[in-house]
Amino acid sequence: MTPAEYRNASFEVWAHYSQQLIEQALTQLLPARDTLPQRLHEAMRYATLGGGKRVRPLLCLAAGQLVNASEGAILPVASALECIHAYSLVHDDLPCMDDDVLRRGKPTCHIQFDEATAVLAGDALQTQAFELLADAPLSAPQRIALVKELAHASGSLGMAGGQAIDQLHVGQHMDLPELELMHIMKTGALIRAAVRMGSRCHPNDGAALPDSTHQSLDHYARAIGLAFQVVDDILDVEADSATLGKTAGKDAAADKPTYVSLLGLAEAKRMAAALHQQAHDALAGFGEAGRRLRELADFIVLRHH
Amino acid sequence: MTPAEYRNASFEVWAHYSQQLIEQALTQLLPARDTLPQRLHEAMRYATLGGGKRVRPLLCLAAGQLVNASEGAILPVASALECIHAYSLVHDDLPCMDDDVLRRGKPTCHIQFDEATAVLAGDALQTQAFELLADAPLSAPQRIALVKELAHASGSLGMAGGQAIDQLHVGQHMDLPELELMHIMKTGALIRAAVRMGSRCHPNDGAALPDSTHQSLDHYARAIGLAFQVVDDILDVEADSATLGKTAGKDAAADKPTYVSLLGLAEAKRMAAALHQQAHDALAGFGEAGRRLRELADFIVLRHH
Repeated sequence: MTPAEYRNASFEVWAHYSQQLIEQALTQLLPARDTLPQRLHEAMRYATLGGGKRVRPLLCLAAGQLVNASEGAILPVASALECIHAYSLVHDDLPCMDDDVLRRGKPTCHIQFDEATAVLAGDALQTQAFELLADAPLSAPQRIALVKELAHASGSLGMAGGQAIDQLHVGQHMDLPELELMHIMKTGALIRAAVRMGSRCHPNDGAALPDSTHQSLDHYARAIGLAFQVVDDILDVEADSATLGKTAGKDAAADKPTYVSLLGLAEAKRMAAALHQQAHDALAGFGEAGRRLRELADFIVLRHH
Repeated sequence: MTPAEYRNASFEVWAHYSQQLIEQALTQLLPARDTLPQRLHEAMRYATLGGGKRVRPLLCLAAGQLVNASEGAILPVASALECIHAYSLVHDDLPCMDDDVLRRGKPTCHIQFDEATAVLAGDALQTQAFELLADAPLSAPQRIALVKELAHASGSLGMAGGQAIDQLHVGQHMDLPELELMHIMKTGALIRAAVRMGSRCHPNDGAALPDSTHQSLDHYARAIGLAFQVVDDILDVEADSATLGKTAGKDAAADKPTYVSLLGLAEAKRMAAALHQQAHDALAGFGEAGRRLRELADFIVLRHH
């Protein structure tokens, strides 16, 4: 596909081709299957390759394309985001956490391998993410800014912190502000980081983007970060496991508070629609350049799995 | 203590004061106990503060002092190394890994808290390490070099990879080259990184150290990295749990290959002595400036716990 064809393609074609780019990048950037220790590298690749919607890398790519980032710069950054996401799934699925056996339509990592390998594969995928950022073909200040963004979004004040709140509240009451804080940390922070990191990959290092661009992108990213989780909660009720590729109804089974359990299904759907609109509004100033991010907002809110 | 007193102090006084500096830095740099999510931050602090020999931070400090690094630059870097070490201990102690209940004379993290919290505290400590490096008061190229060093030393080709080889060989035969590769990855890589990272904190960013300095430090670091593990294996046989602050004899109980099981006690001791000598030889060119690193080699090889 030529650059012009890629730029002008329908969303479905753009997303499919972008997912292929991400899959190729991950395939090349992760240690090879036959590199020692082989079982660990197999598990890292099993947990990362060949599945998933790649929402975070797609957001990163779309934000990068908005600021004319090169493919060579953006793909390792998008891959780092997916490594963090994959590590979090491997650890979340462990018996001591959500104890899940199905993920992306396949046995979870600790089922396919063993628990020790799953813990270590998750650990090493996190490390890999930071190594990819450090090696990205961008200026040192840009790379450091990316390391900060990713660390802040995925650490104890971000994704891992949100997961900790989640684990502590199984079977316990949580009100709407608590639930929102948890999801902003657990899912929202990394999705927001995906957009912010993409826009940090612009080619002119000296020429920082105007503050208004960062603010608009950030409004967009916050809205879709939250929308993503609301839709996840709706799908957990409405879809079946085969469509989801993971165990459906498990939040209700685990007696976890969700937007649906707190607001009811109809209100949760209204909330998703309002966040969808907020995301579109935030992009209004970008015109045609905001097309992929708009389409991704539609994809996130209107998806069936 | 004045800078001159610190510089000229006996090793015991220097090490004690340095350990206090590291403890203070970690106490300040880790998220506060009352920051949400509190239980996660309590677990991160529990696993990191108030214990341990701080071998890696001490090596980092000593190498930093050799190149006149400022305390403000070196302490966050030393703290990052300890966060990685602490995370690895928390995960290694999990029931699905070494299943240990005692560490640094206290209940292990998953015993004191719970398994899910221990997994997440380890995850978040790893993230914290990279965030500390990204925020260190050093140039962006120095910080990026530090992120690369730490990621390479602790990922699937370093510490996590060594731990994976270890887990796969419980109860299985391992020959001496395999055992050595495992330990070079599992323990040696991070100890080596500690020295290398300390020497990267020099104040004149432009003026890189001569290659010969890097090579000498690296020879030193490789020798003590291996010596550390050989001594660990000897102590596992010779010391009791109260002295070690962790469960003694657990390698033999787990039927794990060790230097002692492979070489016998006498030969393992001869190997430790030879590595000790190699470490001293590597520092010969530094004269008085190499004093703390020499003393640390003595400390690592001659310790009783």
